[in-house]
Amino acid sequence: VTEVRIIPLVGIPEIREGDDLATYLVDASREHKLTDEDIVVVAHKVVSKSEGRVTKSVDRQEVAISESSRILRKMNDLLISETRHGLVCANAGVDASNSPPGTLVLLPVDPDLSARRLRSRIRHLAGVEPGVVITDTFGRAWRLGQTNVAVGVAGLDPFVDYRGATDPYGNELRATQICVADELASAAELVMGKTRRVCAALVRGGALPRASGAATQIVRPIDEDLFR
Amino acid sequence: VTEVRIIPLVGIPEIREGDDLATYLVDASREHKLTDEDIVVVAHKVVSKSEGRVTKSVDRQEVAISESSRILRKMNDLLISETRHGLVCANAGVDASNSPPGTLVLLPVDPDLSARRLRSRIRHLAGVEPGVVITDTFGRAWRLGQTNVAVGVAGLDPFVDYRGATDPYGNELRATQICVADELASAAELVMGKTRRVCAALVRGGALPRASGAATQIVRPIDEDLFR
Repeated sequence: VTEVRIIPLVGIPEIREGDDLATYLVDASREHKLTDEDIVVVAHKVVSKSEGRVTKSVDRQEVAISESSRILRKMNDLLISETRHGLVCANAGVDASNSPPGTLVLLPVDPDLSARRLRSRIRHLAGVEPGVVITDTFGRAWRLGQTNVAVGVAGLDPFVDYRGATDPYGNELRATQICVADELASAAELVMGKTRRVCAALVRGGALPRASGAATQIVRPIDEDLFR
Repeated sequence: VTEVRIIPLVGIPEIREGDDLATYLVDASREHKLTDEDIVVVAHKVVSKSEGRVTKSVDRQEVAISESSRILRKMNDLLISETRHGLVCANAGVDASNSPPGTLVLLPVDPDLSARRLRSRIRHLAGVEPGVVITDTFGRAWRLGQTNVAVGVAGLDPFVDYRGATDPYGNELRATQICVADELASAAELVMGKTRRVCAALVRGGALPRASGAATQIVRPIDEDLFR
């Protein structure tokens, strides 16, 4: 078991529509010599901005409702809903912070596709194919505070699966499927912060193999959901 | 912004009731020269075992119900309940894995107290006072897979609070309170795994200052809870 390093990717400028985000990620990774074994974690905010997923509006709730496929709870200015991606979060991920006044940043239309495109572009530019995780900051039903979770994934299985594995006593394991994609997102937040202007990080050493996988796999199907 | 290192603490033997867990943590940290700035993350399993929170039973559901203060959902062999600590999780944290057949490991009676004791004992043994986070592996309402969260905290604020902070545009931030304690727990899981027999990790470089704080602060009060 070796250590895991969470390396902030610094020096990425303010991102605008049409910007080649992968170029900035590769430039910021250069001194760290990006490898296939690394995982590049990037905040959805800059992905959305590069894709033009910014809308001119000051009415966040109206925009959040239009981005939702199902409303779970609505209380004053807080909306808990399900996005078209199946993500359950506050205000459908619509966010005014780190965006010019009068504008709102939306989630990417297809964050898994965004992750796959970033990965493909990184391969083109750098000749290596790290895993890619796109994050957002979500609250939780029963716990205060927010943590970063994976909303887009490319090049890795979002889960490490222990089903059928046994402990040294021969017992089956209780925790059967660890959502490492969300753990990578949370780990990366430790260097990204909210006011440090760090929008991406490199996770190195997790021994998570490259594989096909998508963040949509993390969405709990509605018929297995006890709380929707 | 500097990198964060997640260092596995290896060589800790099977823990039994009455064992001085802090001694093993300090021994395992020795080559890394533990400092006040570090955070020691440890799986509740070994804390519970050292405290004798192991019960002889094979009926996990019966034990889980006795460990619960409120039942949220019950489906076949799955119980979602609130523990006496206010933690909402499956089977009240009662776990048969990594425990001798015929026994079940419970959560510590007061995991924050356990964390404070471990911290105090580490100070006694090593002369430094790192933060301490005790973890368990929880599922989530709307997302598949489990992640590690903080059930006990000592020496750090479980949240980084951005309330009142603004972004470079002068907007207030949407994510106001990041639960770094849970993010530390999740980050540590990346080196702890389930079958690797690594029950603890050192998180170094997070720039999270020592402060008073407890995992009970993370429990969402029932009157602010939309999903209980």
